[in-house]
Order: sequence, then structure tokens, then C-alpha cells
Amino acid sequence: MFEAAEVGHRVSKAAYEKQEPEVRAGLLEVQRGLAQSQRAVVVLVGGAEGAGKEETVGLLLEWMDARGIETHPLWEVSDEERERPRFWRFWRVLPPKGKIAILFGSWYSEPIIDRVFDRINELEFERELRRMADFEQMLTNEGVLVLKFWLHLAKGAQKKKLKEMKQDPRLRWRVSKDTWRFFKDYDAFRAVSERALQLTSTGYAPWTIVDALDQHYRNLTVTKTLLHAIRECLAEQAAGAPAAADPPATATLPTRREGNIIRELDLAKKLADREYDRVLGEYQAELGRLARKLHDSQRSMILVFEGPDAAGKGGVIRRLTAAVDPRLYRMTSVAAPSDEERAHPYLWRFWRDLPRHGHITIYDRSWYGRVLVERIEGFCAPEDWRRAYSEINAFEEQLTDFGTVVLKFWLAIGPDEQFKRFKHRQGKPRQVGRLRGRGGGHGGAYQHG
Amino acid sequence: MFEAAEVGHRVSKAAYEKQEPEVRAGLLEVQRGLAQSQRAVVVLVGGAEGAGKEETVGLLLEWMDARGIETHPLWEVSDEERERPRFWRFWRVLPPKGKIAILFGSWYSEPIIDRVFDRINELEFERELRRMADFEQMLTNEGVLVLKFWLHLAKGAQKKKLKEMKQDPRLRWRVSKDTWRFFKDYDAFRAVSERALQLTSTGYAPWTIVDALDQHYRNLTVTKTLLHAIRECLAEQAAGAPAAADPPATATLPTRREGNIIRELDLAKKLADREYDRVLGEYQAELGRLARKLHDSQRSMILVFEGPDAAGKGGVIRRLTAAVDPRLYRMTSVAAPSDEERAHPYLWRFWRDLPRHGHITIYDRSWYGRVLVERIEGFCAPEDWRRAYSEINAFEEQLTDFGTVVLKFWLAIGPDEQFKRFKHRQGKPRQVGRLRGRGGGHGGAYQHG
Repeated sequence: MFEAAEVGHRVSKAAYEKQEPEVRAGLLEVQRGLAQSQRAVVVLVGGAEGAGKEETVGLLLEWMDARGIETHPLWEVSDEERERPRFWRFWRVLPPKGKIAILFGSWYSEPIIDRVFDRINELEFERELRRMADFEQMLTNEGVLVLKFWLHLAKGAQKKKLKEMKQDPRLRWRVSKDTWRFFKDYDAFRAVSERALQLTSTGYAPWTIVDALDQHYRNLTVTKTLLHAIRECLAEQAAGAPAAADPPATATLPTRREGNIIRELDLAKKLADREYDRVLGEYQAELGRLARKLHDSQRSMILVFEGPDAAGKGGVIRRLTAAVDPRLYRMTSVAAPSDEERAHPYLWRFWRDLPRHGHITIYDRSWYGRVLVERIEGFCAPEDWRRAYSEINAFEEQLTDFGTVVLKFWLAIGPDEQFKRFKHRQGKPRQVGRLRGRGGGHGGAYQHG
Repeated sequence: MFEAAEVGHRVSKAAYEKQEPEVRAGLLEVQRGLAQSQRAVVVLVGGAEGAGKEETVGLLLEWMDARGIETHPLWEVSDEERERPRFWRFWRVLPPKGKIAILFGSWYSEPIIDRVFDRINELEFERELRRMADFEQMLTNEGVLVLKFWLHLAKGAQKKKLKEMKQDPRLRWRVSKDTWRFFKDYDAFRAVSERALQLTSTGYAPWTIVDALDQHYRNLTVTKTLLHAIRECLAEQAAGAPAAADPPATATLPTRREGNIIRELDLAKKLADREYDRVLGEYQAELGRLARKLHDSQRSMILVFEGPDAAGKGGVIRRLTAAVDPRLYRMTSVAAPSDEERAHPYLWRFWRDLPRHGHITIYDRSWYGRVLVERIEGFCAPEDWRRAYSEINAFEEQLTDFGTVVLKFWLAIGPDEQFKRFKHRQGKPRQVGRLRGRGGGHGGAYQHG
């Protein structure tokens, strides 16, 4: 597919200068529209060394209003990033609604390099790419326009370009030993990149392959593609079209006997007080030791608690935390999202709190709110909670693949017991938070969308 | 001052259990009040090893509603933290309004250790402490209640406690080689800590020294102090009293001929177009090289642009950024604060964007908004912008002490020129963002309070 970008497209300086004012004015116009909209834009700039990635981004920042653009170089991985699932660093740089984020390097860089140097096999490579396509689909569904540019240079053209850069005192530093080492593997890089682009050039997030030999052509192709894509996206929104990347993924709905698992529970099960006190102490002591071991082994853990109001989530969590060194865990409870959270894809707020190595995050209610309270109360559209099932699976797969221990608890009580507890609480407002019988009633208190 | 905490305070188990329910109920009550208020609480828990810092925090989390509390272990410094001024990691864990943050370790740990091991001299030590007192004063003025607990053990008591811990399989890991090494310097630690506490026990953020030998006494002292302090703080707020730590610091107002600096500028200065084009290119080339050098030397830089609307901030910034590798800088422009930003002390939002080593952050408008637009438009109270002068000085001192290059530019135009540019813009809406003559008019668009 790269051949089409090697036919030597050219734009003369005169033609370029003629078109520039119109493109610039258009970009500023769509940027103003974007700022007022419910959409965000992610621009990935990838491609060959010497193809002008830096120059292209510099141009975008010059032609557009830089106040609405965030640029993120993803070259250096910090230890805070290294100690979280791979996508954490991408989630943390997602732009809020109304803004554009330009990423240097992207989620594609690592798998492509890993595949070229045979650190992963073809199947692993394809699985990674499928995940990226899923991630981009989720972004699109969340109202994020994903634009992917690949700046291409043929082998001879790249070699010539790198030599020219080597001669230029202002650009020399960009041609390092790594650059030449990578160039030696040009053919492999080309083949692997081509495969990556093929597998991830989807209807909702297609790749734009740019012939980067002529800078005028390169600049105009990128800017005009960006302009038209944002314009179209805003027009669709204005016309009331959903941002949906695809028809609702009904196929991913769980097909097991929904709800029956809970209905079939024996809610009459009891533990005698004396027995409870004895085993609680034992388990707590063991838990404290294990949490320490988790820290020493640099693993991380996530505990999720869900269940109806008054099921006792708070009480259970307090017994857990009483046993664990408070430096080792963080508790986070789902309340109304802040406006920054609301301006990002739904799962963004949960990515924020992911534990570092050796630490535990306890979620008192969680991302399951999307398919529980938000679904039931109608806080989000049916197509949004429908797709949430597979998005949650993808999210949790990221966690477990990274080695995080993920445990999810559903605390079940029947409606009679819940009513009894509500009554009990009502009579004793000061008892909220006491060891027996407490709760928060945060269940209906949040909304996202 | 530690002697008072060595007299062997004790509380019997019976007395403890009698008081516990009332304190717990009270804590939950003030926590509910806090959640509705404009105040936040920071609790520092410091003191001797073996004095029960972890147990005390565990108790607070058990007795209170953990959903309103964030705990932050400040023992491990990440590379993202290491590459920013020392207080960055403290700013990033400040609680929003309505919440409590408990910090293990604090801004005091490092200077105390550095002084004990003679890495800093007495004068440097005192300067650090003065900065901390200033920081706490700022927090208090911003509506943050700062509570500082020092859990004390006499030498003999600490030795006994550490030996007991060594015998207990659940606590053994907490007694490391470092613990004994530090214990060897008990006397030095005691003297230095005492000095630190003396110098920073202010009216607005006093230290509570707790005799930690008896756990019942320790627990009740900490919880009751916390309870009363929050209750008092909420009562003050309800009575309409400002959070002000001190009377307005009018003394810190600049006494130089205010405003005249700007009025005395020669606004008629001109540069011929040809000359401009020539030197601009030269300077841009030089700037690109220097930015790269900054990166290689792992220094960071902050550029601040202020000035009236239409002064050309955007245009200047675009000429700067055109010359610099876009991976090396971030541009951030002051717009309306998000609700998370509004729930934190004023400067919090600016700390968020501080550059890492080797990087540049460009602020298009900045923290000077506090003493410019907010002052003029009445967005904040006079006592708030008055104290901002010294807070800004303290903030910038942190930056420069850390080695960050800080450059601040005021772009001045006269009222006639401004009017002319407004008129010109009005006629050509599409020209906004063009190379000559553009601006944003963000000046009056933000408010914080």
C-alpha cells in the first residue's frame, strides 16, 4: 500500500502559497467550532525518520491556534508510566472535549519495533493491533475523532534525506546511531508497518499515508485532510448523528442467564458472631502479610466492590483496610464526575487511579456503573452501555495482562433486607459509618455523559 | 518541648472504650459538614519510628468515612517528581475542597534528615523551614486546614518498641537496617526535629505533639484534636470568618513606582520589516539550537507571556515555537479553571504543567492573572490578591532554586494602538491567527475563587 505514496507527488511553491491562506483560515474556523462542540481530536503522526514529523507538527501549531492544541512527545517512558498497564500513558494524554492532542509516536511504535526485531511473533503482533483498533473504536464512540498520518519515504529517498540532515548543523542531532541501525532494517520496517496499517485502517479511524518527499505536498495533504475530517465531524454532530463508530455491538452482550446468578444466591446464609470474630482476625493478619508481600514483589492489585445500597460495601472495605498498611492502598469511591472527567471518555477517570507497582487500589463502585446505574437510570444512551461490556473487558484484559491482580466482589442482599437496613439507618443518622450497618447511598448520585 | 510528651500519659481501656463512640460519631459528623463546605483538610503524621504512624492513620480511616479521605505515602519519589521543584509532589496531592488528605511523611522529612546528617547547614535548614511555614500559611489562606501531628517516643521507649516490633512477625519488616541507623542518631534527630517544630508551630498551623507510648492516649489525642479543629474551622466558615491566616500582608505590596515602568516605555519604537525578517530568522535558528542544548543538559525552562489583549502574545509565541522542536515544549494558556482547579489553591493549576527536565512550558497568561485581571475585575477579594504577591515570589523562588530558567515577558501597547487593533480584527474575523495581528481575548474570560 506504500507504492501509491511513492509516485512522486509534488506541489509547486506557487500553488502551495496560493492554497495556504484558505487552508489556514479553514483550520482556524473548524478549531473554533470544535471548541464549542462535544468532540475532541487525536492526531497521530508516525512514519519514517527524515519524513518531517517534527516539521509537520510545527506547521500545524503555526497555522492553528496553539491554545487549543496539546502536543505530547511519547518518546520517554517515565517510571510512573512503566509501572502501569501500557495504555495508561495514552489514556493520560487524551484531550478533553473541544481540544486537539497531537501525539509524536503512538501506541503503534512499540509493537512495530518489537515485531521488526522479532521480540513478538506474528500472532502477538496481530493481537496488539486488534487491541489498538478496539481502543480507537472506543475513542470514536466516545466522540473523539482519531486521525492517523503516516509520512512515507521510499528507501532511496530516506537515505538521501538522512544524509542531507547529517550535513545540516541544525538537524544533525536528529540522525543518531539508532537512526542508521533502523535504516539498515528499512525493508523489515516497511513490511511490518504496512501490515500494521492494513490491519488498523478502519472505517472510523483510517490511516492517511502521505508521500513525504515533497514538503509542500506533505504539508497540504496533512492540513487539508485534518481540515476536512474535523469539518465533517462537526457537521455530523450538528446533524445530530451519533459519534458511533459502528452499529451497537449487541453481539457482545452477555448471553448467560443474566441476573439469575444473583437470584439464585442463598441469601439466608449466616455466620455466627463468635466464629466471625475468630476467622476475621485470622484473615486480617494473613491479609496484612500478603499485602506486604505484594509490595515486595512489586505486583499491583485492584479490588472492586459493587452491589446495591446498604449491601455493606463500606463495612467490608473497612475490615480490609484495617488489616493493610495504609501506605500500600488507595481507596477511591465513585462520586459525581468532575468536569475534566466528564470531558473525557468514560473510563478515563478509572485509569487515573490505577495503582503503581506494589500498591493496591480499592474501588468502592466502579466502571460497572456504566452497565448498572447508568443503564438503569437512563443516564447514558443504550448504544453506550451496550458497547461498555466489551470496553470493560478490554480494560480489564489490559490490567491482567500487565500482571495486576484484579478481584471483583458483588455484595448481594434481597429487597426486604435492603428496606430493613434503610429503615434502621433512617432512625440512627449518627450510626452511619459505625462498624455494623453503614453505607453511603452514592448509587444514584452520579452521572456521566 | 518534647519533655511534655514524656510524662507517661495513659488512658485506660475502659475510659477509651467509653469515649470512642462519641469521638467516632463526631468525626463522621464534621466530615459530612466538611463535604458541603469550602474547606479542605491536610493531616500530616510525622514522628518517631515505632510511635504508631501507620496505626494512627489506619484508625482514622476506620473511624471516619474513608470515601472522603485520600492517603498519600510520600516515601518513594518518582522520576516525574524528581524532575520538578521539590514542592511539586506536595502540590499534586493537595485535597480538593470537601476532602481530607493524610500524608505519611511530609515536606518536613527531607530537611530534618538532611540537617541530622549535616548535608545542609543551620541557615539552610531554617530557610527551608521558613518556606514551609509560608506554604502552610498560603494553604490556610486558601481555605485548607493544616493539622500537624508529631508522634513522640522517648529514647528508651523507642528502643523497647523497636525490639518488640522485631519480635512480632507481622511488624518485623518495618524494622530495617535504616531504622537502627536512624536510632543511633536519636539525640540528633530529637534536637533537629524539636527545632523544626519550634520554628513551624504557627498560629495557623500549630504542631500537636503526641505522647505515643500509650496507644489509647495516642489515638484519643489525635482523633479528638482532629475533631475539634475541623469543627472549629467549619463554625468559623459558617460565621463568615475568612480563612485568612493573618491580616492582609500589605507590607509585601511592591513599593516601586507602580505602573510607571509601563507608562515610561517608548511605545513608538519600530523595527523595519527587512531588518525584522533578517534577525528573526537568525534568532530562530539560534533558539532551536539552544532548546536542544537545554534538553541535552536536562535543564528546564518556563516562559511567561503577559500583556493587554491584542498586544501580540500569540504572535510572539508562534514565532518562538516555530523555531523549537515541538517535542521539547508545551504551551498552556489560561482559560476558565476546571472545577478540579477551582477546588484547589489558586496556584495548583500552574504547578500541574511544570516542565520535566529538558523541557519548556510556555504560559500564555499565567499566575499573574491573580494580581491583574482578578484584581481589576474584582474576581477575588483584596486580601487574596494582596497575599498573591508574596505567594508568587515563593513559587518562582522554588522554580529558580530548582534550576529552572524562568523568563517573563510583558508585551505593552498603548490604548490607541489597542483600539486600532480591535477595530482591525473586527473587520477581518478570519484573519485571527494569521501571522500579523492576532490575539485571543482570553483576558477577561477567566475567574478563580
